[in-house]
Amino acid sequence: MFKKIALVGIGLIGSSLARVARRENLARHIAISTRSRATLERAEELDLGDSYSLDPKEAVEGADLVIVSVPVGASGAVAEEIAPALKKGAILTDVGSTKASVIAQMQPFVPEGVHFIPGHPLAGTEKSGPDAGFADLFRNRWCIFTPLPDTDPDALEKLSEFWRRCGSNIDTMDPQHHDMTLAIVSHLPHIIAYNIVGTADDLESVTKTEVIKYSASGFRDFTRLAASDPTMWRDVCLHNRDAILEMLARFSEDLASLQRAIRWGDGEKLFDLFTRTRAIRRSIIEAGQEIDAPDFGRQAVDHPAKT
Amino acid sequence: MFKKIALVGIGLIGSSLARVARRENLARHIAISTRSRATLERAEELDLGDSYSLDPKEAVEGADLVIVSVPVGASGAVAEEIAPALKKGAILTDVGSTKASVIAQMQPFVPEGVHFIPGHPLAGTEKSGPDAGFADLFRNRWCIFTPLPDTDPDALEKLSEFWRRCGSNIDTMDPQHHDMTLAIVSHLPHIIAYNIVGTADDLESVTKTEVIKYSASGFRDFTRLAASDPTMWRDVCLHNRDAILEMLARFSEDLASLQRAIRWGDGEKLFDLFTRTRAIRRSIIEAGQEIDAPDFGRQAVDHPAKT
Repeated sequence: MFKKIALVGIGLIGSSLARVARRENLARHIAISTRSRATLERAEELDLGDSYSLDPKEAVEGADLVIVSVPVGASGAVAEEIAPALKKGAILTDVGSTKASVIAQMQPFVPEGVHFIPGHPLAGTEKSGPDAGFADLFRNRWCIFTPLPDTDPDALEKLSEFWRRCGSNIDTMDPQHHDMTLAIVSHLPHIIAYNIVGTADDLESVTKTEVIKYSASGFRDFTRLAASDPTMWRDVCLHNRDAILEMLARFSEDLASLQRAIRWGDGEKLFDLFTRTRAIRRSIIEAGQEIDAPDFGRQAVDHPAKT
Repeated sequence: MFKKIALVGIGLIGSSLARVARRENLARHIAISTRSRATLERAEELDLGDSYSLDPKEAVEGADLVIVSVPVGASGAVAEEIAPALKKGAILTDVGSTKASVIAQMQPFVPEGVHFIPGHPLAGTEKSGPDAGFADLFRNRWCIFTPLPDTDPDALEKLSEFWRRCGSNIDTMDPQHHDMTLAIVSHLPHIIAYNIVGTADDLESVTKTEVIKYSASGFRDFTRLAASDPTMWRDVCLHNRDAILEMLARFSEDLASLQRAIRWGDGEKLFDLFTRTRAIRRSIIEAGQEIDAPDFGRQAVDHPAKT
């Protein structure tokens, strides 16, 4: 599909792209760049690409497709650095979890003749780094583009086809709507998870040993999201601030109302909410975005002798 | 182990007990009672026991072990109903998620000579009803007893042995400490999950279709707990009120502080919290209460061709 792909950043997303691009034969040459020497060496040990460089300018030189996979707070600096080396006609994209901020950071540096198409694959796990990636990460997951008013339709279609071959389904929307949507489906859940794990960690009446021992009764579900990459999530919070604050305000309002129902013993209100939320999981399973096995299918792993 | 076990209530927990008691040969006779005719008929179709009755008095007659597995709000009424039919020397236990309330409800009805030992197996899934149970539900999970001051040690040991044969590890603690511990490791996580799913369900700017489509980016993790049995969780909220309100207050305080860090761009504070919470998941995995596979091992299910 491409003569040369340059991957700037080789963490969970970048390394998964490297793996699937090679498996699906999407590029003749995969150039990898990251600013950490240790990570770059690890990428080479894992044989993720064809060339490796600490200098992103070197990696992007002559590339038809450049994918920036760095924490969103670093995207402006990366754009500034690689801009002079970008080939005319190249597609430049990113994978950041916030879009308005990334556009504001990167677009000023994009040279004439380079197709900048902001993107966001909704895929990931709680693990990070080049060892954590795998070729099927994007399979059956959505990849959202937030094209700019002057985006070339051919370039958009070519990039879409690349992501489809990586296994993704494609959607497009405007950056503001993306940021609001992701604030509720992704950013708020992570923030809440980080928060509750922090609250538990601070307790003095219940020991940390007890929190760990008895975590299977609900708590452990939250620890997965709360084990996600801290740098990535710090940047998401700082770069999608307004949408996140809006969703946090709604969440807190609802929680105050629920708390009041508990305090005053309003069983009917509790029952109504607890019933309404059941239907949503069913819809997510039907949409193919979740498995139907109880307990996320964990039982199958730690309870092999199920009867 | 027992001549006759009576199971009052045959939902997820009761039906799992029936299955494991039969598999491990823990009773000569398993009597099943539930107040819903449809559920009782289903239990019989599934061949979960040896006798079936809508009248719990009939089921507990002559039983050496009576296990009450009903929503905690119903435990007092059940105790009152079965009390006259309990055999002298029998062990009476429950599986409720709150202990002080269950003790207050049941103990007044327990006849002289019957060993009442409150218990709580920390096991479950988001599914409910007799079809949802399975014999390995309790394997490697904790079962907590909150014995009363006059509990007979022999009876406690016999009940402990029963649960060990069901696969559980045994702990004992006082009821107040149990209720406070469970408020943070189980009740708060469920309440938060119900709340965030409710908040998302109410949004007008993001459609419900979008919440469902893009849920894999974090939100879907919360929907599992929020799909749990509404009656059970209404009762937990009503019957562990004080401990839950205490934990909710701490959670909300922490969230307000986190929100402030987001508003004022305090990246260092965010990074510190997001780093601290990672360690807890590692400890839970090491304690054998969680699997190490990314994404709860879901990848293995929906991404079979992992490379």
